[in-house]
Amino acid sequence: MAEELQVVPARRGRAVRLAKGQAIQIINTHGSQVVDSWAFNAQDPGEFMSMEHSRGAMLRVNPQLGDTLRSNRRRPMLTLVEDNSGGIHDTLIAACDRYRYEQLGHVGHHDSCTDNLAHALASLGVTGAETPSPLNLFMNIPVGADGSVSFQPPVSTPGSHVRLKAEMDLIVVFSACPQDLVPVNGADCMPRDAHYTID
Amino acid sequence: MAEELQVVPARRGRAVRLAKGQAIQIINTHGSQVVDSWAFNAQDPGEFMSMEHSRGAMLRVNPQLGDTLRSNRRRPMLTLVEDNSGGIHDTLIAACDRYRYEQLGHVGHHDSCTDNLAHALASLGVTGAETPSPLNLFMNIPVGADGSVSFQPPVSTPGSHVRLKAEMDLIVVFSACPQDLVPVNGADCMPRDAHYTID
Repeated sequence: MAEELQVVPARRGRAVRLAKGQAIQIINTHGSQVVDSWAFNAQDPGEFMSMEHSRGAMLRVNPQLGDTLRSNRRRPMLTLVEDNSGGIHDTLIAACDRYRYEQLGHVGHHDSCTDNLAHALASLGVTGAETPSPLNLFMNIPVGADGSVSFQPPVSTPGSHVRLKAEMDLIVVFSACPQDLVPVNGADCMPRDAHYTID
Repeated sequence: MAEELQVVPARRGRAVRLAKGQAIQIINTHGSQVVDSWAFNAQDPGEFMSMEHSRGAMLRVNPQLGDTLRSNRRRPMLTLVEDNSGGIHDTLIAACDRYRYEQLGHVGHHDSCTDNLAHALASLGVTGAETPSPLNLFMNIPVGADGSVSFQPPVSTPGSHVRLKAEMDLIVVFSACPQDLVPVNGADCMPRDAHYTID
């Protein structure tokens, strides 16, 4: 039973409930959009998807097809069951926040993935105690042989997607990253809509 | 003004206050001991050293001499001002916890860096809201060209050290990792004391 196409508007976040066994397909509609992603135990938001716990279990810095992201209690949360985006995602970099934009020289309000997470959770009546390090879908942060990292445009193509299967009842949150000062959302620094379907 | 040598006993944690401008030297007394490390704003433990924010600022997965670790508000917390340990430290892997030992087949209580952090903070009357991803001093987690990670024994030698300078008033916490089921604390899987001095 495929739901209709839903939007994650450019610069905004969305929270959705996902029952165990359901899957969510996140579509990089324009190909260039990073989608910061989080998951929380639907019964207890103190249990959340943790990149630092997931890396140790996956034995990889970035999830590949078949890999399972784990919680801060080391339990399976989401499994990557489809990926035709090029397989480049990031687990290393924090969500953008107002401090990041201040450091980049922005003055005044700027949307951020950190605020989007809080607002999206609030839309479901949930308060997150913290901002876990996100799974940055489609984000291209290559790690060099010397341990260096760099911020590069996505390699994903328009309409490509990943599909994540819920391993427990979850609240998942997606933010179409509003970063427009460095080219993580494409060389033109233009945040765009992403879309999702649940089945 | 060098303080006397203090111990972080094998399998245990210690919390110390560090004023801005002070430095702490962490000595890998036996060469093989991983020391999980955290830092908190002394006035507000809701601001803490964040590996995911630090990696984006350092543009490296592991700190090198001169690199500054940053907080979840992206402010400088600790700078690596000396390192004769071989320069191999980890920012990728979560602190061990009871879930980790359960998954490794251990039955009953096992000390963990996560519990050591909570106990060490409590010794100063502080309650941490969460367990930030630690800076794992001396921990050897190589990242392959394909993004793979593996758990390897430290390369540090007995008596080698790192020296970290406080960029704000801090509470720093160290845990001599009690992991004795995988060889992150040396091939013989034997947790040992580490030491520190403050100046």
